[in-house]
Amino acid sequence: MLSGGLDSATCLAIASQSYEVHALTIDYGSKHSKEQESAKALVAYFNVSSHTILKVDLNAIGGSSLTDENIKLDQGKKFEEIGKEIPSSYVPARNMTFLSLAMGLAEVVKAEKIFIGANSVDYSGYPDCRPEFFESFQKTAELGTKTGVDGKPVMIKSPLLHLTKAKIIRKGTELGVPYELTWTCYSGGVKACGKCEACLLRLEGFREAGINDPVEYEN
Amino acid sequence: MLSGGLDSATCLAIASQSYEVHALTIDYGSKHSKEQESAKALVAYFNVSSHTILKVDLNAIGGSSLTDENIKLDQGKKFEEIGKEIPSSYVPARNMTFLSLAMGLAEVVKAEKIFIGANSVDYSGYPDCRPEFFESFQKTAELGTKTGVDGKPVMIKSPLLHLTKAKIIRKGTELGVPYELTWTCYSGGVKACGKCEACLLRLEGFREAGINDPVEYEN
Repeated sequence: MLSGGLDSATCLAIASQSYEVHALTIDYGSKHSKEQESAKALVAYFNVSSHTILKVDLNAIGGSSLTDENIKLDQGKKFEEIGKEIPSSYVPARNMTFLSLAMGLAEVVKAEKIFIGANSVDYSGYPDCRPEFFESFQKTAELGTKTGVDGKPVMIKSPLLHLTKAKIIRKGTELGVPYELTWTCYSGGVKACGKCEACLLRLEGFREAGINDPVEYEN
Repeated sequence: MLSGGLDSATCLAIASQSYEVHALTIDYGSKHSKEQESAKALVAYFNVSSHTILKVDLNAIGGSSLTDENIKLDQGKKFEEIGKEIPSSYVPARNMTFLSLAMGLAEVVKAEKIFIGANSVDYSGYPDCRPEFFESFQKTAELGTKTGVDGKPVMIKSPLLHLTKAKIIRKGTELGVPYELTWTCYSGGVKACGKCEACLLRLEGFREAGINDPVEYEN
């Protein structure tokens, strides 16, 4: 599952060490759809067998600052406040929807595993990034899919789940992830805003890792 | 969740007896997208507060005779064979995807419940129509959504789950469901084919119920 952000890029690097990769990018009508260009660039950089860009119209649901024009993005939060509560950028049932779509694709391309770059340490506080959610989803998928019923379930792997952002960046740097190709900012501008929760988490991660963030930020 | 078929129409009639209804129809690129016209007609017939038609491009995944041009629909199966194994019309991870989308919408419109017209008695043998799948999905949704984490989970109701097709039709007839407005056939023709598993289950249900099916069939 490749959004085009820092985490999914690192996850792609990890997966492609050991597996033939079928990348899935979901175009859900978010304000920062620029990340799809990053997904394409990452696919071109890594050796990927196929890249599916799948449209799902989450604007028809809305309810999030990422999918509803009328809901304002949080910018300028204190770093310490991030992840304490569910933010306005929470997209209702997003990971459940996206993992379900990934499960469908995995069955069709006969994938053994789904790699998702979710993270529950330095993260925005989304309930669908927590280990207990992924464990439960795995069970549900085994009951609701052909491969699950056939006893050959597609396994969900989240190798970044327990890593801090700094550790993710260090690991990705070792693996040669081209972070200059990734896109993290939620705000939809030409340069990254440096103020939304996604930018703040990224910037702090690079700072703590002692690595230069190659992406350009607004002043 | 309103596909426009017999089961979801009956489910809508049940839900609208006790609840303000926000209908959700998912346009997933199936060959029988004609059912969406039925969904609209049913929404006009019943008193519905909103109707969301949400596009999700399952053609990008394929893997089913409903979503992939190159996979042939089963027609002319023996009635006794239906439901014995997972048929070619199985859409990988469909109900998981659709329920996730419904969960997202439910959070936004502040719905208490999701009604789904799934049926595990006279059905096609889909793993994601079984009670154990719905129970597990409920738990996963409670872990992965804001309403779940807040202790006010959206509850999934499947009032038809343990009914035979004949009982569903009798119940719907009592409730005044306009079955002439529904669409069941998978084949994508102008009239129902009468040969696909969906038509066979429907026809047998009406026969057993002793009620005339008002829909026109090819000869």
